[in-house]
Amino acid sequence: MGKVYIFGHRNPDTDSITSSLVMADFERKMGNEDVISCRLGKINKETEYVLNYLGIEAPKLIESVKDGENVILVDHNNPKESIENLDKVNILKVVDHHKIALETAYPLYYRAEAVGCTETILYKLYKENKLEIDKKIATLMLSAIISDTLLLKSPTTTECDKIAVKELSEIANIDPDVYGLELLKAGTDLTSFSIDEILHLDAKKIDFKQVKSIVNQVNTADISEVMKLKLDLETRMNEIINEENLDLYMLLITDIVNSNSQVIALGKSAKLVEKAYGVKLENNTALLKGVVSRKKQVVPIMTENA
Amino acid sequence: MGKVYIFGHRNPDTDSITSSLVMADFERKMGNEDVISCRLGKINKETEYVLNYLGIEAPKLIESVKDGENVILVDHNNPKESIENLDKVNILKVVDHHKIALETAYPLYYRAEAVGCTETILYKLYKENKLEIDKKIATLMLSAIISDTLLLKSPTTTECDKIAVKELSEIANIDPDVYGLELLKAGTDLTSFSIDEILHLDAKKIDFKQVKSIVNQVNTADISEVMKLKLDLETRMNEIINEENLDLYMLLITDIVNSNSQVIALGKSAKLVEKAYGVKLENNTALLKGVVSRKKQVVPIMTENA
Repeated sequence: MGKVYIFGHRNPDTDSITSSLVMADFERKMGNEDVISCRLGKINKETEYVLNYLGIEAPKLIESVKDGENVILVDHNNPKESIENLDKVNILKVVDHHKIALETAYPLYYRAEAVGCTETILYKLYKENKLEIDKKIATLMLSAIISDTLLLKSPTTTECDKIAVKELSEIANIDPDVYGLELLKAGTDLTSFSIDEILHLDAKKIDFKQVKSIVNQVNTADISEVMKLKLDLETRMNEIINEENLDLYMLLITDIVNSNSQVIALGKSAKLVEKAYGVKLENNTALLKGVVSRKKQVVPIMTENA
Repeated sequence: MGKVYIFGHRNPDTDSITSSLVMADFERKMGNEDVISCRLGKINKETEYVLNYLGIEAPKLIESVKDGENVILVDHNNPKESIENLDKVNILKVVDHHKIALETAYPLYYRAEAVGCTETILYKLYKENKLEIDKKIATLMLSAIISDTLLLKSPTTTECDKIAVKELSEIANIDPDVYGLELLKAGTDLTSFSIDEILHLDAKKIDFKQVKSIVNQVNTADISEVMKLKLDLETRMNEIINEENLDLYMLLITDIVNSNSQVIALGKSAKLVEKAYGVKLENNTALLKGVVSRKKQVVPIMTENA
């Protein structure tokens, strides 16, 4: 059937990158040789740490695929987070842990579960198909689960994620707490990023009903370090709001050690954040205590209040 | 978490009914006791044959579930084919073999594959989870796969369906060809149905782009027998078109022995059938040679030409 391009979402995080690599390994082991692991954007610092740790190459950077080509989507299904011409390619499979936002004109393989990380589902797929998980694959999976669940502390964490981390740590011969903290800290290093890059690092376009928004999340071990950039961040956020005709730009600065997020909210619907969380924005910012998960603690609450 | 209601699509066929029963068995075997196998409509003759063969009760007839209740969808995901308040209940899982037409505000378990029958996926789920398939469950699964694939002759048939039929026949100790023909023939018995019931037996609301349509499929061993009802069918079809403000009502009368369909097409977009299949409608009807699958041979072709 020709080449199959495998990729995660734009602004790829560790789950999107490693899932692309692992899914390609899975497909090859299932007999589909002609698969290409790809990515739709720059590797972040956290993922770089993983790739360096293993000494492996990043997936191939692509911007799009030609109409009619075969693709497999991992870690996303929302067309807004994918290639522009998603409606013109042939989606063979989706493996994902997000809400359903895809409409197709044809049946396809779709595997989603409400777990903390795509890699947890891929781990199950290896098990179900009795495939061996080697040390490298185990490390990739483990890294993504640690990343997405903030070391199993995020409210998105499920029993399945915990089981996967336990078994994968053993295969990889890694102490997840030690490795995990290093990994998460690597992800908080913003030194090589411009203000604009920070604002696109993990930016997702989300409509809270009629409220056209971007929610961007930046992990840190020290909120005050990031808040030093506040004025520059706000200037560029306002530009993005104008350029993309947004109602809201939410920047979540998430403290991975203490599990809180400082939010900076701009745009004409910024007050929605106050309503949703019962907080008062002062100079466009507020602390959202205990909020670390965009999926569980931002999207449903903001949608409900919009 | 309280009761979980499991059901297939409205105008349930053998796959929707048996998948509801089998999914409930699967969930119980996985430790979820509080599941209720349900159906959203009348049992058809074919399904009745299966239930009588096994001496088991039909799933519970329901019209809706209360807002906030937990549900599992089998054999469908399109809200148009489900309960009215699908957007207000909590969908725990979907197991289906149709195109994706569902949008959710939350992640969930979603398992779809482009195979001929939902039961083929359920068969895999038992295997993957190392659960035993007893004789009764095997017969339910086998019946649905025979029904949906017209004894493995429909173009929707995949290698997975064939493997499932082979193994399930052995467990059930059934000759699939002998049992299958009896089953399919039972489904062609229209004697107890009114004209209105025939026109709702397997009617699916489908939009071919802007063309608002119903496509209904009736299986028969003798097309001319059904065509005796043509005038009465057309009268009621025209009423349905007016009542539901449709652009097209397509009635496919499918010859399960010779694998052809006679189509009766009414409504202001009836000519779309001529364009899509290169046929001439005479007295609103034409023979579509080799067409037996609504999913593979109607939906994509009609959509492309709309």
